[in-house]
Amino acid sequence: GDDDDGGSSCGLTWSLQAARDAEAVVAVDCSGHGQVFLDGVAGDDGRPGCECNTCFGGPDCSLRQPNCTADADSGNPLFLEPYWRRHAAASAVVVSGWHRMSYTTTDSMFQSVELEQHIWRLHRAVGNAVVDDKHVVFAAGSMQLINALVYALSPDANAGSPPSRVVATAPYYAAYRSQTEMFDGREYMWGGTTAQVMANASRNSTGGGGVFIEFVTSPNNPDAQLRESALGSAASAVIYDRAYYWPHFTHIPAPADEDVTMFTMSKPSGHAGSRFGWALIRDEKVAKKALEYVQNNIMGASRDTQLRMLGIVKAMLANLHGEEDIFAFGYDVMRARWRRLSAVVSRSRRISLQEMAPDQYCTYFKRVRDPSPAYAWVKCEREEDEDCHDALLKANIITRTGVTYEAGSRYTRISLLKSDDDFDVLMERVTEFVNAEKDDDASSSSM
Amino acid sequence: GDDDDGGSSCGLTWSLQAARDAEAVVAVDCSGHGQVFLDGVAGDDGRPGCECNTCFGGPDCSLRQPNCTADADSGNPLFLEPYWRRHAAASAVVVSGWHRMSYTTTDSMFQSVELEQHIWRLHRAVGNAVVDDKHVVFAAGSMQLINALVYALSPDANAGSPPSRVVATAPYYAAYRSQTEMFDGREYMWGGTTAQVMANASRNSTGGGGVFIEFVTSPNNPDAQLRESALGSAASAVIYDRAYYWPHFTHIPAPADEDVTMFTMSKPSGHAGSRFGWALIRDEKVAKKALEYVQNNIMGASRDTQLRMLGIVKAMLANLHGEEDIFAFGYDVMRARWRRLSAVVSRSRRISLQEMAPDQYCTYFKRVRDPSPAYAWVKCEREEDEDCHDALLKANIITRTGVTYEAGSRYTRISLLKSDDDFDVLMERVTEFVNAEKDDDASSSSM
Repeated sequence: GDDDDGGSSCGLTWSLQAARDAEAVVAVDCSGHGQVFLDGVAGDDGRPGCECNTCFGGPDCSLRQPNCTADADSGNPLFLEPYWRRHAAASAVVVSGWHRMSYTTTDSMFQSVELEQHIWRLHRAVGNAVVDDKHVVFAAGSMQLINALVYALSPDANAGSPPSRVVATAPYYAAYRSQTEMFDGREYMWGGTTAQVMANASRNSTGGGGVFIEFVTSPNNPDAQLRESALGSAASAVIYDRAYYWPHFTHIPAPADEDVTMFTMSKPSGHAGSRFGWALIRDEKVAKKALEYVQNNIMGASRDTQLRMLGIVKAMLANLHGEEDIFAFGYDVMRARWRRLSAVVSRSRRISLQEMAPDQYCTYFKRVRDPSPAYAWVKCEREEDEDCHDALLKANIITRTGVTYEAGSRYTRISLLKSDDDFDVLMERVTEFVNAEKDDDASSSSM
Repeated sequence: GDDDDGGSSCGLTWSLQAARDAEAVVAVDCSGHGQVFLDGVAGDDGRPGCECNTCFGGPDCSLRQPNCTADADSGNPLFLEPYWRRHAAASAVVVSGWHRMSYTTTDSMFQSVELEQHIWRLHRAVGNAVVDDKHVVFAAGSMQLINALVYALSPDANAGSPPSRVVATAPYYAAYRSQTEMFDGREYMWGGTTAQVMANASRNSTGGGGVFIEFVTSPNNPDAQLRESALGSAASAVIYDRAYYWPHFTHIPAPADEDVTMFTMSKPSGHAGSRFGWALIRDEKVAKKALEYVQNNIMGASRDTQLRMLGIVKAMLANLHGEEDIFAFGYDVMRARWRRLSAVVSRSRRISLQEMAPDQYCTYFKRVRDPSPAYAWVKCEREEDEDCHDALLKANIITRTGVTYEAGSRYTRISLLKSDDDFDVLMERVTEFVNAEKDDDASSSSM
């Protein structure tokens, strides 16, 4: 685009003021350690001020807090923010005051046909999902899809069947449990881990009974392993959560081609705040029931977000396999982070990380690639470090306890997805933690 | 804003192309009977084409279908679209590619603090709700709030109590029933109409038993009457749906000051496609539980939408009580539509409309005002017109049957909220319907 002729005539009318407001906000200096947003809280001058990254403060975020606690809890995908700053012109969108005010959109329903087509193109170009024989259902993030798909795959409440049981293999993403428990009732309920189900089945000649809906996260959150269904044919339905099945995070051995697959925009583009996800569903009836759920629950994902996501997907597509490929960018960041963390932790006997297979061939990059997981899955090796989350918290590192993943307190998750500032502070604290082991080893009674 | 200096230097960089794209789309001619959207389906030239209003066709929407069916089913608030076209500069927003990518926003949660404050200002300025002692919970439209509030007000599933029963007084908005039925289970279930509850209570010395959550829509959808709780002290909680409690649609006798009140942006500003609603909740625990629901269900309303809604609310506030007051604009449109429809229907003996009290004093306009309801609630008076929806459908008028509102098929709802084109076609069909009565009277065996 010709986005550098700022000094000449630009011929704009109604959009000019909004464009100036947006550019004025971006021009505010936050020292590279914070940002200004158009809807930030207004200061005394009526303008939004800097929102500083964690561990930075002051009006322009230039003050670094010494010995700041590293927060590696959330899977906030801020590592991609610099990419979008580099692609500002391609990813900006102007929303007019009368844009899509209607309840319905071009298909007389709630989904932008143009966005559907661009999502299909993205899957085809990346090679991470077979889309041709699938129906696509939009939702307010993959979060909403969890229950929408459980609902769509469960027997009807009036059918007189027992509720289906929703299960997953530990360590698993906690929202499958928490959301199913919040909504549980006559159609479906949380059924625990696949290991429990199989133990019950082997004790019980009836085979455990009932209808099972299994969530399979692949690559898995938290441990980044590619996974298959644990129940296999014993599951009446499997929901594959492919949130992390993008070349940032994993090699792509082959396109996913499952009956029901979930995706979210939060991980490929990093737009977690937009709350946009989609499911690819083979069976038309299941797709219809999932759509009915989204309609009854929220009448479709925000059309403002759908417009913005269309621009984002177009910008991604335009750069695939080029110098500015978002997946190449993301892979470089995530690989470098994993390398730095692994190198430090390899010196530790107190904590260890999950094994990541090296040199996996990726059909997208058309070459072997190094590991670049979204999360480090940490195990505390010392007997007294039963609560690994606590052990790290004492070293000023906030992680997400393995208890959340039903994997026990000896494990905890470190997010590698956040901003460069977050990762730098994390590396400082982890390095101190590992360096302190020598002193510990000298004074400790254990081992 | 200085939005008329298109010929001079404008000093923009990264937002320029997006602004040009948006203005180019708006410049496409759709004959005043259609629109182009940035995310419209692309034609052969790769650009989105006109999406024509109902009953119009052709590449530029200039072809009017003769004898076209009037669709007065949906409550699509398109009557406000011309207002936003008149306020294009004030309501446009530029979203950068890196705007609020994070899961969390300024309050470390999911709600824009700045938007909260502007919504409070709007309620204070309009005088339709007391906000000072309330917590505000954002959601993806008031649709999502229905179940969020039912969940928040119901006993815990593990408490061993029977499920609360969700009730409403007929005629009532069908989503209270359909959404509660979709989610029903251990905590709550649909309990029917308040009339059924009271009939059971009088037959039954136990008073009907159980916990009742009553939805009260005021003004009511479909019949536009201001309502109070029917169960009174027999309801353990009342949820007031104030979607239509804005000066477009009703006089405002006093600010609403209830324990739990729902609002949506769809009706005051007309942005139904944005899916944004909010609840005002007095009790902190109830508010927390509703927030927890929105978090578990979708992790908060889209931040893209929250940014856009901030611009919309600011534009509304800037014009209140001035010549370009959105409520004065909306009131003029809705009053004129009600007058035109009433005048024609007053000549009919076959159909009648709900009574609307004249000359109600409005604290916002500070004068008495005429009726301007969002919907006409039609009764078919002839004995043989048992199905009023069908009777009108035969005259090529699509309405929403009273069966939906549990009010019987003798009633049906006509939406007055849609575009001028929709209303014009509606008036043509209704006028023909009423004019045809003379011929009917001559030939009919009834009466």
